[in-house]
Amino acid sequence: MNNRIPVLEIFGPTIQGEGMVIGRKTMFVRTAGCDYSCTWCDSAFTWDGSTKEEIRQMETEEVLAELKQIGGEYFDHVTISGGNPALFTSVNELIDLLHHHHIEVALETQGSRWQDWFLKVDDLTISPKPPSSGMETDWSVLHNIINRLKENNISLKVVIFSRGDLAYAEKVHQRFPGIPFYLQVGNDDIIEKNPDQLALYLLEKYHWLIDQVVASKTLNQVHVLPQLHALVWGNKRGV
Amino acid sequence: MNNRIPVLEIFGPTIQGEGMVIGRKTMFVRTAGCDYSCTWCDSAFTWDGSTKEEIRQMETEEVLAELKQIGGEYFDHVTISGGNPALFTSVNELIDLLHHHHIEVALETQGSRWQDWFLKVDDLTISPKPPSSGMETDWSVLHNIINRLKENNISLKVVIFSRGDLAYAEKVHQRFPGIPFYLQVGNDDIIEKNPDQLALYLLEKYHWLIDQVVASKTLNQVHVLPQLHALVWGNKRGV
Ligand code: SF4
Ligand code: SF4
Repeated sequence: MNNRIPVLEIFGPTIQGEGMVIGRKTMFVRTAGCDYSCTWCDSAFTWDGSTKEEIRQMETEEVLAELKQIGGEYFDHVTISGGNPALFTSVNELIDLLHHHHIEVALETQGSRWQDWFLKVDDLTISPKPPSSGMETDWSVLHNIINRLKENNISLKVVIFSRGDLAYAEKVHQRFPGIPFYLQVGNDDIIEKNPDQLALYLLEKYHWLIDQVVASKTLNQVHVLPQLHALVWGNKRGV
Repeated sequence: MNNRIPVLEIFGPTIQGEGMVIGRKTMFVRTAGCDYSCTWCDSAFTWDGSTKEEIRQMETEEVLAELKQIGGEYFDHVTISGGNPALFTSVNELIDLLHHHHIEVALETQGSRWQDWFLKVDDLTISPKPPSSGMETDWSVLHNIINRLKENNISLKVVIFSRGDLAYAEKVHQRFPGIPFYLQVGNDDIIEKNPDQLALYLLEKYHWLIDQVVASKTLNQVHVLPQLHALVWGNKRGV
């Protein structure tokens, strides 16, 4: 059995910039590959072939060794991100190994396919993609995933770029009432090199998103958040 | 029995800008009065006499009526803030009334005194004040409070202005391991009128705080957060 994981980067410690554990001190393991190709993907380098030669097929023990080497005694939480880490059954072993070492695990996936190890993730974010992504949600798959995770510590997250995305978010929230729901400002300027300019631009968009949510009766039990890492580091990778 | 609460302002819906429910859509009820007088208090108007004539002694039913009048059907969460709302036993009835109307309640207090109604708060933040505040922590009172709340949904939060505050935060975290722990950037420029300038300044300080936490072995199981409302609205009141 192949227990290797295609890893693109391992970095940290830093903070989780978004979603249900926003601000949490964490290390990152980024897997390569995605079954989606969102128009605005901020990690397109994980699937567009541009970083192909950086991908390493790693054993779970190697991943842990590198985490320890980089992070030393300065972490107790690991975020597995992508791409879509849900492509790999082998993530199961990585989660077990991390738990064995008393390390908590957070993970985000778009909800396009199920893995049994979802049940073991400490902080699981399911982030279905809104219309502006160009992707289509398979509602039956999503319903199945959420149903099986109802008793777990999960959240739903939708990134918002447009009014159409907001309508989609309302629909998701209505389909899954009671599941903690996060709205996130989309970063549609992944070219801007000046972090100050980008921060002010994203704060303006965040302000707009708050106004929209305040004015919606459907969106009451929600959290509205920016991406803190984009506010602090701009479009820089690996921080 | 006096069931009135001294209320300084009721506003919203907006988002909670800090702490364990950061980003949550909420209404605010701000009580008047504090047993502390922190040097950098950003709501000194609640206790320094400057807004004395705005304080209303309100019945809990009046508070709910005003929340409904302002917030309509656009909220299901209320944050009770201060000053120090823990000065008033009458907050008990307000919490019961809000729960009766299926409204969740968040509350923050510095941990200087106990109230039995702490046990009913859905999201309770205890925020002991670090040395830069000029206040002294009564550790026995704080330990007693945390012990009685262990099974509840609480968090500890420390605002950081200086290295001395960071050392204090490490001490708090070590005294109460396992209690979700939040570090927050202090806003030491409550005069700045230009929100863009303030936002960039606070992001710089946030970056500094992240760096400090990343470099601390003691501060692993922590969340590091800015104040989102200060980033979006600057030093404006009532948003
Ligand atoms: S699902 Fe995520 S990683 Fe995949 S293309 Fe969309 S944004 Fe990028
Ligand atoms: S405890 Fe809070 S409200 Fe009271 S003086 Fe300190 S910062 Fe201000």
